[in-house]
Amino acid sequence: MIGITIGDPAGVGPEITLKAVSAMDAAERAQTRIYGCLKTLEAAQVAVGTALKLGEDVAVTDIPVEGGPLPFGKEDSRAGDAAFRNMEAAVADAMAGRIGCIVTAPLNKASLNAAGHHYDGHTGMLAHLTGTPKAWMILASERLKVIHNSTHVSLRDAITRATPESLLKTIRTGNDHLKRLGYPAPRIAVAGINPHCGEGGLFGTEDDTQVAPAIRMAREEGIDVTGPVPADTVFHRAYNGAFDLVVAQYHDQGHIPVKLVAFDTAVNVSLGLPIDRTSVDHGTAFDIAGKGIADAGNMHHAIAYARNLVKGKQ
Amino acid sequence: MIGITIGDPAGVGPEITLKAVSAMDAAERAQTRIYGCLKTLEAAQVAVGTALKLGEDVAVTDIPVEGGPLPFGKEDSRAGDAAFRNMEAAVADAMAGRIGCIVTAPLNKASLNAAGHHYDGHTGMLAHLTGTPKAWMILASERLKVIHNSTHVSLRDAITRATPESLLKTIRTGNDHLKRLGYPAPRIAVAGINPHCGEGGLFGTEDDTQVAPAIRMAREEGIDVTGPVPADTVFHRAYNGAFDLVVAQYHDQGHIPVKLVAFDTAVNVSLGLPIDRTSVDHGTAFDIAGKGIADAGNMHHAIAYARNLVKGKQ
Repeated sequence: MIGITIGDPAGVGPEITLKAVSAMDAAERAQTRIYGCLKTLEAAQVAVGTALKLGEDVAVTDIPVEGGPLPFGKEDSRAGDAAFRNMEAAVADAMAGRIGCIVTAPLNKASLNAAGHHYDGHTGMLAHLTGTPKAWMILASERLKVIHNSTHVSLRDAITRATPESLLKTIRTGNDHLKRLGYPAPRIAVAGINPHCGEGGLFGTEDDTQVAPAIRMAREEGIDVTGPVPADTVFHRAYNGAFDLVVAQYHDQGHIPVKLVAFDTAVNVSLGLPIDRTSVDHGTAFDIAGKGIADAGNMHHAIAYARNLVKGKQ
Repeated sequence: MIGITIGDPAGVGPEITLKAVSAMDAAERAQTRIYGCLKTLEAAQVAVGTALKLGEDVAVTDIPVEGGPLPFGKEDSRAGDAAFRNMEAAVADAMAGRIGCIVTAPLNKASLNAAGHHYDGHTGMLAHLTGTPKAWMILASERLKVIHNSTHVSLRDAITRATPESLLKTIRTGNDHLKRLGYPAPRIAVAGINPHCGEGGLFGTEDDTQVAPAIRMAREEGIDVTGPVPADTVFHRAYNGAFDLVVAQYHDQGHIPVKLVAFDTAVNVSLGLPIDRTSVDHGTAFDIAGKGIADAGNMHHAIAYARNLVKGKQ
């Protein structure tokens, strides 16, 4: 069973959820539960042109929006509050084992904060709701998958946080994840921090003192890990099949290549939480919300990824 | 007139030079001079299967390799020394105005250093030979062009070097360059240093205190410059036509996206020197040197770029 949260009800979340559920066969639908406002979903069905019997064709946990359905495409604290409660309900079900993975539609950070829920986005919210100190982000596209040692910290902090201990945990987390996805022995590359990995200490020593020790330790554990590999070629090589996963040292190092080759199609996956969660990698797209034209392709990918994860657990 | 240095004579430089010159029409050949060892070029002609009358069909400044022609595909200090002397001769001609732009084939850093020429590559050598304190590197592909505020320094140093003054110079240099290439009003974007440009200071303040002031000053000079733009989307946007040039804050920020979308086809251009220089962006490829199979596509691009620059000077 997977659970889909519609995210911000004023965004494209309800529409892409309905499109994705409509495209499922009956067996898949029977293993799906939507978390979101029924009235909003009914309004979105008109826009999208789907005719699902909500609660019959697909399970729905109704989380009514105050005053809903609200107009699409507008920031509203009531929408932000509903987005939070959608997630709260899904997390409770996931923690209780009633759903195997949460798939999240996008939320609007401004609406969320206007409702008094102060998070930097889904990941912070999920960490708080599950009482987890650290979560990892994987951006996964078909040909390029990247796990980040750190994300929403300054570039200087990211360098400091690339300790041997932290990198070893990141390598292990990525390795375990790919095994669950069905890779028997994932081929992992670790990107360097400095240009040309510092070229023997000429341009910085972090690759020698921080990155290399983590790789040695991971290899001793039997993980197939290479590096540090100069960052300017490692993504090209992974994209062309040399590696199954790249460990990025900082947010932009991993996001630049994935967004370049898989804009709006990569799946964002949270690791290190007691529950599984995948997400679309685009925003609420307020400019087109309610028009029925939002593309559900990224949602399809996020759902397919979630089903693979649930399968890997069994 | 453009000058082509064959780079390391044991690498693929002689072959790709001959292939490129063979493909030129007579008028273009009349505006081309090769800097390199005649005997090596004759040996390469056998491998490549070209039948240029060297010195007649195309001008050659003969820089004999000690003991040459040397075997292809091997590190050799005599090859490294010849690579240095090729460049020295071309720089002298460029400084004297006898050639308008130097196009460089790849050199081998180990051979160069073994010959006692201690440079980090072409750019350092060119800066020294021309007495220039600072040079900029542009990586230019058809759809994505990136100028780097710094290159071969540690990531920590790169953040420190992204001062308003330095970034302003980089923006100006990029703007002037694109004007010479024929862009009447280049649209330039400056990438952020921190993820999401620090999101209002939450993840670092450098984008507010170092990057934003440079952009304001450049705008006051009438340059069409946008930013800081989050690094994870700016390259995608530029690649899809939103900007003509991106200012990268550090080596890998610019190299990761260009090498991903234009591996072995991007042209490497040096700016800030008293002379113009373009280069292929691949290495000496010792594994295939002398076999006649090296692809000259990148050399064609580097030559075409050089001709555009020479045209822009007139």
